[in-house]
Amino acid sequence: MAFSERIARLKSSLIREILAAAQRPEVMSFAGGLPAEPMLPKVEWDEMPAALSQYGMSEGEPALREAIAAEARRLGVPCDASQVLVTCGSQQALDLASKLFIDPGTEILLEAPTYLAALQSFQLFGADCLTVPQEADGPDLAVLRERLQQHKPAFAYLIPTFQNPSAVRYSEAKRDAVAALLDEFQVTLIEDEPYRELVFDQADATPIVSRLKRASWIYTGTLSKTLLPGLRVGFLIATPDLFPYLLRLKQAADLHTNRIGQWQALQWLGTDKYRAHLAELRDFYRLRRDAMQVALEEHFSDLATWQVPQGGLFFWLTLKHKQDTRQLLAAAMAEQVAFMPGEPFFVDPEANPGYLRLNFSHVPPEKLSEGLRRLAAVIRRAQGVC
Amino acid sequence: MAFSERIARLKSSLIREILAAAQRPEVMSFAGGLPAEPMLPKVEWDEMPAALSQYGMSEGEPALREAIAAEARRLGVPCDASQVLVTCGSQQALDLASKLFIDPGTEILLEAPTYLAALQSFQLFGADCLTVPQEADGPDLAVLRERLQQHKPAFAYLIPTFQNPSAVRYSEAKRDAVAALLDEFQVTLIEDEPYRELVFDQADATPIVSRLKRASWIYTGTLSKTLLPGLRVGFLIATPDLFPYLLRLKQAADLHTNRIGQWQALQWLGTDKYRAHLAELRDFYRLRRDAMQVALEEHFSDLATWQVPQGGLFFWLTLKHKQDTRQLLAAAMAEQVAFMPGEPFFVDPEANPGYLRLNFSHVPPEKLSEGLRRLAAVIRRAQGVC
Repeated sequence: MAFSERIARLKSSLIREILAAAQRPEVMSFAGGLPAEPMLPKVEWDEMPAALSQYGMSEGEPALREAIAAEARRLGVPCDASQVLVTCGSQQALDLASKLFIDPGTEILLEAPTYLAALQSFQLFGADCLTVPQEADGPDLAVLRERLQQHKPAFAYLIPTFQNPSAVRYSEAKRDAVAALLDEFQVTLIEDEPYRELVFDQADATPIVSRLKRASWIYTGTLSKTLLPGLRVGFLIATPDLFPYLLRLKQAADLHTNRIGQWQALQWLGTDKYRAHLAELRDFYRLRRDAMQVALEEHFSDLATWQVPQGGLFFWLTLKHKQDTRQLLAAAMAEQVAFMPGEPFFVDPEANPGYLRLNFSHVPPEKLSEGLRRLAAVIRRAQGVC
Repeated sequence: MAFSERIARLKSSLIREILAAAQRPEVMSFAGGLPAEPMLPKVEWDEMPAALSQYGMSEGEPALREAIAAEARRLGVPCDASQVLVTCGSQQALDLASKLFIDPGTEILLEAPTYLAALQSFQLFGADCLTVPQEADGPDLAVLRERLQQHKPAFAYLIPTFQNPSAVRYSEAKRDAVAALLDEFQVTLIEDEPYRELVFDQADATPIVSRLKRASWIYTGTLSKTLLPGLRVGFLIATPDLFPYLLRLKQAADLHTNRIGQWQALQWLGTDKYRAHLAELRDFYRLRRDAMQVALEEHFSDLATWQVPQGGLFFWLTLKHKQDTRQLLAAAMAEQVAFMPGEPFFVDPEANPGYLRLNFSHVPPEKLSEGLRRLAAVIRRAQGVC
């Protein structure tokens, strides 16, 4: 069978296997990024108009595009509804951006580490991935400047607010500096913000796209982390030079996003009901974050270091004794504990051993300590210090 | 702005413009392939389980996959649920197949004419499109053999049952012959069947994939033409050598299809309620087909020839005096009539002037004659015979 050349770059299903195994009810899973089921709001469908059954527009429902643009303007993103494309989750925004920009060998710029499903999409299309190390407050600016001086990446893909996996939130100073650099070198920014609303403190963090003066940009978000993932409703907002191409690529990909999910999203976005739900969600996740921090201090303080995340869904652990964490998976699963090895979040996994991503939203607090105790024991055994 | 090389192949938005213009309420549209709104069934959402709100499986909902496989087996397609991938409409199946098979320059085999959105997807990925002329009962077999002898296409994409746009249904003999040829040359078949259930006579037409003995295949279908397009629920069924790749490509494209639409589809597929709905749908569309035939005989018998379609949603007219039908569009729109020019359904539009695709499901019968009278007048004026 002769497949396309890109199929040789389709990544193995390690992650799929972890997530599938983690769904067994007896497994305590720190692996996925799933919202906590008790916090999925009950939604009503009674009022949905029958007219939504027909084919819709590739752009998305006009009223939902207006609502998304209004929310984005509230964050400081200068845009109107004509720049909004409703997508099948924000994953689809990555697929469309890959199609727009990437040929085999096209240089792009990523954080190290970065979101692994984005990395997989970009690599599938053949991107040559340049990276900038992530520091506690955002990317290493000296390296970023060097990369931009020496290369001409088609875009920079950044997750500045509660980055997946590192949980880093860029500082105000780094947001400004990154915007200035992208403007200086006129490199398009793709700013991915699935976790913005899951914030546990009062700090502000205006999107980087709103600080750009010359560079083109795509800003992406989703309702999956705050409303219902099963709706598959995300969005992108793009500068007018990019939008028409993204729209036609969307049409070629699947005609349009399902209209029932779009209608449900519109019942929430921008409403008091949604704001109240977000407040509850933050309180709930903050408690789980705090419980995880307590349990980590109990079981991991000799094994790893980490920052306490101020938002998002993950802790990112750096092992004190580096080892390939993929090799811990089988032993952890034998103990009914799932986690996400850090290596697949790097363009060069072999050169970056010794990180773990631990989700804190899924495992109930009463099971947390036992799960982390078992995971720590697996690591100690692997390091010969049991 | 440096886009990917494929963006140079993104087709102009002519079709989008026609469909957008055709949505104005004063326009009589023969352009789209939209189901008639009065025939969209009223659906209930009361019983939907809250658990469907969470992320789902990339493959699709297990119960829906079982139901799709059962329906396909009923048609004669040998398959089980493990071969079923639920997609965001059948358009997405084309995107996934393009990714699986097509590099720039990859040869593929199509009917002439063929479905234009498929053509656009394949060309976007850079396919080199070989064609086989469509005859009244299916493809020209001598040309098909010649193409297979001289080339090694990555796949043949065929729409054997009420082809869009030509409305052709392959005869039993041609179905067998096409299967034998694809087996002989071991060329993968992509069989696209959106219109299978919209049939107006009792004739049988077992899918070609069920006649294959050696060749790999992908069979695609959708709920959009028979239930609700707005759900965006379609599917593909693939041989086991292809399925794992398509699944990973689906995961990279958008993680999974929306679960609420999948749940609704499952409430219908394989039920008596659905069979009764399909029977009503066939009666309704048969009446519209008949009304269109009467109106065409009245206004077009001197201008064009056509076959009476035994299923699907379209008449395909061949003008007696060839002319580029794209140049009739502006005049027709000025008369508040929209239609689909035939040229974009061909790999080489310039070499194939003089066809029109007319949808018969959308315009109510009482307006039909007036709409076709106006369209015929536009053609006569353009031919200088007014």
